Amino acid sequence: MMSGAMKFKNCGSVLITGANRGLGLQLVESLASGGFSPGKIIAAIRNITGAQILQELATEYSNVHIVTLDAVNQESIEKCAEEVGQLLGQEGLNCLINNAGINVVADFHSVTAEKMIENFHTNAVAPLMITKAFLPLLKRAADRGGLGTMGIQRAAVINMASLLGSVELNWGERANNIKWYPYRTSKSALNMVSRCMAVDLEPDGILCMAIHPGWVRTDMGGSEAPLSPEESVASVLSVIGGLTEKDHGSFLNFTGEQLPW
Amino acid sequence: MMSGAMKFKNCGSVLITGANRGLGLQLVESLASGGFSPGKIIAAIRNITGAQILQELATEYSNVHIVTLDAVNQESIEKCAEEVGQLLGQEGLNCLINNAGINVVADFHSVTAEKMIENFHTNAVAPLMITKAFLPLLKRAADRGGLGTMGIQRAAVINMASLLGSVELNWGERANNIKWYPYRTSKSALNMVSRCMAVDLEPDGILCMAIHPGWVRTDMGGSEAPLSPEESVASVLSVIGGLTEKDHGSFLNFTGEQLPW
Repeated sequence: MMSGAMKFKNCGSVLITGANRGLGLQLVESLASGGFSPGKIIAAIRNITGAQILQELATEYSNVHIVTLDAVNQESIEKCAEEVGQLLGQEGLNCLINNAGINVVADFHSVTAEKMIENFHTNAVAPLMITKAFLPLLKRAADRGGLGTMGIQRAAVINMASLLGSVELNWGERANNIKWYPYRTSKSALNMVSRCMAVDLEPDGILCMAIHPGWVRTDMGGSEAPLSPEESVASVLSVIGGLTEKDHGSFLNFTGEQLPW
Repeated sequence: MMSGAMKFKNCGSVLITGANRGLGLQLVESLASGGFSPGKIIAAIRNITGAQILQELATEYSNVHIVTLDAVNQESIEKCAEEVGQLLGQEGLNCLINNAGINVVADFHSVTAEKMIENFHTNAVAPLMITKAFLPLLKRAADRGGLGTMGIQRAAVINMASLLGSVELNWGERANNIKWYPYRTSKSALNMVSRCMAVDLEPDGILCMAIHPGWVRTDMGGSEAPLSPEESVASVLSVIGGLTEKDHGSFLNFTGEQLPW
């Protein structure tokens, strides 16, 4: 865990969405408790109610800040960006981790248009709308960073993607085991959003990529998952911390390997 | 054009969505006027108003049937499936071509959640909901077809995909030229839907795949596109007509080559 967080020593600020539980909460905790903690760790959550562990972290670590953000509400997104802008001032935002996500479980027979749209909105559209709203803050950080370089020491947008969003890997045994239409579709849509944004953020020197955190023992992953949140996040932070130009627009596993679209 | 349509001689019935204009209308015309026309060509359109050319085709060719279908309205989808079921009886439906699609043009700056959802609903969710509704008719045709074989002589679901939905190809010059967030995302989502459906339709012997029709001079493609609707549809019908087991779950170009996801 330390090795992952350590790479954040040159990162002034990180914002993590969906930070009230699961991987989001673990990202905050691992970054805050690591030896080289970023200057400001901003934990964005939909509702302060029920976020007790996060509140305790904010009490323990003075660099942890909690802000409210409803990822599917444009007004809330813009209000949050304004609040974070005031918190960060001229330094801007170095790293935005679009982690908030849901799994609206439905197979071929139970899937409805509403379920597809709900999952798509939260998992694919929200990261796009949030990135748009935080673009001025990311640009500010990118402008201050070293020209010609890319990475979290400058500015980066990280989208929490999923192996289940890989169209190529959705075949054979892998496909038969997990038939989640809304989730799979939303995550493949997110991959396209990541790639589109990478193209548009490149001129500003902002790195953008997608990462699969592994199958993790969270509320979403269930108790049978092979990875603990600590293990997943240690790997994920290590990969994010080491990102350079060559990773721009990529889809990486938590182990650092490239994944097929 | 003849060579493409000719392969449909063993296909009893085809249903084409979005048949009032563009590629959908051309599909109906090429199939109807080909030497070996399917027994029944069902042209599904949202609104009979303005579908004059299609109405003329239905007058000229007795095997062309027009039905109304609003692809984003569940009640309309179910009503259409019932009507088509009565038209086809025990023979069922051999080939469903999910062709209806829209392009809600928006770049990074102009894109909104609403635009993303609108395009996703029509281009990715509707083909899924339509296929679900027509499944009993496809199964009926598949049951009557030769066991162990796959193709349009038995039962097939064809999704009109797009090269612009390829995440891998959305890079470099290709990416910079066409920055359509809602369209690209909806088409990559459709690829995942195709792949999910291929997995679920396989036990019933129903082939499912995605095809890119090329860049075509339609209302959507614009006047600068290199292909005429006739040329595109001749190639598309040739590919569809020749589909076998090995193409199940694939993403093919109109020329027949495999495309990257």
